[in-house]
Amino acid sequence: MSVTTPRGFRAAGVAAGLKASGAADIALVVNDGPDAGVAGVFTANRVKAAPVLWTQQVVHGGVVRAVVLNSGGANACTGPGGFQDTHATAEHTAAALTAASPRLMLGAGEVAVCSTGLIGERLPMGKLLPGVRDAVRALGRDGGPAAAQAIMTTDTRPKNAVAQGSGWTVGGMAKGAGMLAPALATMLCVLTTDAVAGPETLDAALRAACRVTFDRIDSDGCMSTNDTVLLLASGASGIAPTEAELTAAVTAACHDLAQQLIADAEGATKQIAIDVVGAAGEDDAVEVGRSVARNNLVKTALFGNDPNWGRILAAVGTTAAAFEPDAVDVAVNGVWVCRGGAAAEDRSKVDLSGRDVTIRIDLHAGDAEATVWTNDLSHAYVHENSAYST
Amino acid sequence: MSVTTPRGFRAAGVAAGLKASGAADIALVVNDGPDAGVAGVFTANRVKAAPVLWTQQVVHGGVVRAVVLNSGGANACTGPGGFQDTHATAEHTAAALTAASPRLMLGAGEVAVCSTGLIGERLPMGKLLPGVRDAVRALGRDGGPAAAQAIMTTDTRPKNAVAQGSGWTVGGMAKGAGMLAPALATMLCVLTTDAVAGPETLDAALRAACRVTFDRIDSDGCMSTNDTVLLLASGASGIAPTEAELTAAVTAACHDLAQQLIADAEGATKQIAIDVVGAAGEDDAVEVGRSVARNNLVKTALFGNDPNWGRILAAVGTTAAAFEPDAVDVAVNGVWVCRGGAAAEDRSKVDLSGRDVTIRIDLHAGDAEATVWTNDLSHAYVHENSAYST
Repeated sequence: MSVTTPRGFRAAGVAAGLKASGAADIALVVNDGPDAGVAGVFTANRVKAAPVLWTQQVVHGGVVRAVVLNSGGANACTGPGGFQDTHATAEHTAAALTAASPRLMLGAGEVAVCSTGLIGERLPMGKLLPGVRDAVRALGRDGGPAAAQAIMTTDTRPKNAVAQGSGWTVGGMAKGAGMLAPALATMLCVLTTDAVAGPETLDAALRAACRVTFDRIDSDGCMSTNDTVLLLASGASGIAPTEAELTAAVTAACHDLAQQLIADAEGATKQIAIDVVGAAGEDDAVEVGRSVARNNLVKTALFGNDPNWGRILAAVGTTAAAFEPDAVDVAVNGVWVCRGGAAAEDRSKVDLSGRDVTIRIDLHAGDAEATVWTNDLSHAYVHENSAYST
Repeated sequence: MSVTTPRGFRAAGVAAGLKASGAADIALVVNDGPDAGVAGVFTANRVKAAPVLWTQQVVHGGVVRAVVLNSGGANACTGPGGFQDTHATAEHTAAALTAASPRLMLGAGEVAVCSTGLIGERLPMGKLLPGVRDAVRALGRDGGPAAAQAIMTTDTRPKNAVAQGSGWTVGGMAKGAGMLAPALATMLCVLTTDAVAGPETLDAALRAACRVTFDRIDSDGCMSTNDTVLLLASGASGIAPTEAELTAAVTAACHDLAQQLIADAEGATKQIAIDVVGAAGEDDAVEVGRSVARNNLVKTALFGNDPNWGRILAAVGTTAAAFEPDAVDVAVNGVWVCRGGAAAEDRSKVDLSGRDVTIRIDLHAGDAEATVWTNDLSHAYVHENSAYST
């Protein structure tokens, strides 16, 4: 149930001392082939970390045989020196893998690099590079769970997923908690599959999957500098699914991981699904859902178990979506507290004692719909994010 | 030092029982002329409270002789019944003022109405209308401070301001704490002047003033349904300043009130000025300032006295402003912790022990600049907004 569930992949997670806690902080995923297909989706933030700039080039090259990931430092806003560190990490990984398995003959340009942690500090390369060598030695067909452990930062638990095709499989791991954001939650995610698929098919499947999963979770509206989602294909199953079949399985794995990310968001006490229906178009539905998901007043109200639909309506009102203010209905956990833009059922009927909250917004402007997932804004979020780097 | 400082205005603030606390909750400002000029700026939220819809029409009519304001209820999302309540409030105010001073002969169409408080509940008209009569009886030339008291909600103190012209004056009052937002902080503000000024001049002066004051404070990115800023002109000084003179005085009064609003924002422990310089245009500077002002991770870091410039850079990176990521400099309280998009001076030199924080961002993309003001995100913000309606 991890990145090593599909055939053709090995992985490892080791501790190199990047984290003061001594917890695992270097992960390695290797694609033993026969194929080395790859697709990637990256942060839309214009301030991109060095590993993002590197890995975009590597993915553009079309062949990725290994992904090396570190927690304990984002290597973002680190200037030319930071980019050299990423390059050195890729070269060192390629050399160590080649030394361990000479038939691989890896080049640095086939190694993707991902980093996560504090922004603005150089990585301790004296610890990182020996850690890469340890990871190479630790590689195994059962190493997926250890890799998922090693990429955690403020995550309280590792995130793994798997989706089954007919004779082929998609596996995945992800990290991220807080800073989950627009146009990619802040996160690292590596997906693997033993399906046979060309680069266009992999790219189409990954983009379609991200669009309705990671792109629709929005924990705190803050977009990271390091978001990376990679899909590696080994072809080891010998089976070539259709693009639709591959998309469905990748989407299932991404959905599973996205829900795990939101469930583990920093300090959250509520897991909130915002279903927007009756929209004139899907873009409108997403815009409305995202506006509500990012509204601090809505999020604090839900933390306080308060079905404050007025704040929801005020958030809807800031969008450019097609709707008439006096035609909007809002339900919280199934109780239609607002009909036609005004109070309807008694808000005291709303049960907010559980962790799951569903907000349903009917714009009465069409037939399109979308769901955006978020969490509440709690004391623990403030605490965790005011104390993170100090 | 209030709305009754300029000649030609009377005001009052009384308790009508709309607030459970028994505090004052109805304010009245009357323009005794000779002129009755008005300009108004309103929330950009498409979900507009009944009093906003009403007052937009009244201001469009060009004559406003009285403004009646209530706290203890926003009268937003209250349907056609809510609009009738606003209409009835204006009619009742006009009738009571006419009865008290028959020469006034006021019509409802000359009475602006503002409301603030919880969204989604009808106002208790049985209390509000007798309160209006009490306010008419309490009107006085020294009633400005009482009016400013009566419009408070979660404000901890009233906000008054005055700006002097040559032989004429601008006075003002405002309320707002939290929900301070884009394109108007959530707030009610009434400005008065005894200058002689035509409608175009009043409108131009008010819009120019709001653009660089209220539009640039952003407490929590949440836009209200009730934002209203009104400027009333009595002409009682007999002096007609130039548009530039009037604009300067109105801007000074608005700036003073805006700073008071940010200083009193819900739960804030820091008052933060974000100076963006070196921008290609003023719009770019404002976009960058606003993006940083709204970023929960920046705001929680500052609450924790953490000069986390990486989060600032990540917020800048989400904008469409012209800049190169490796050319941005960031200073926190005068220490240039980031130069050229990477770490520079030691962050430990930054003193964040005080309440005032200045973030300076140099985009190195041009000569334009702008300042956006905000506050931090604290435990108290979460507490206040999770407990507000319950």
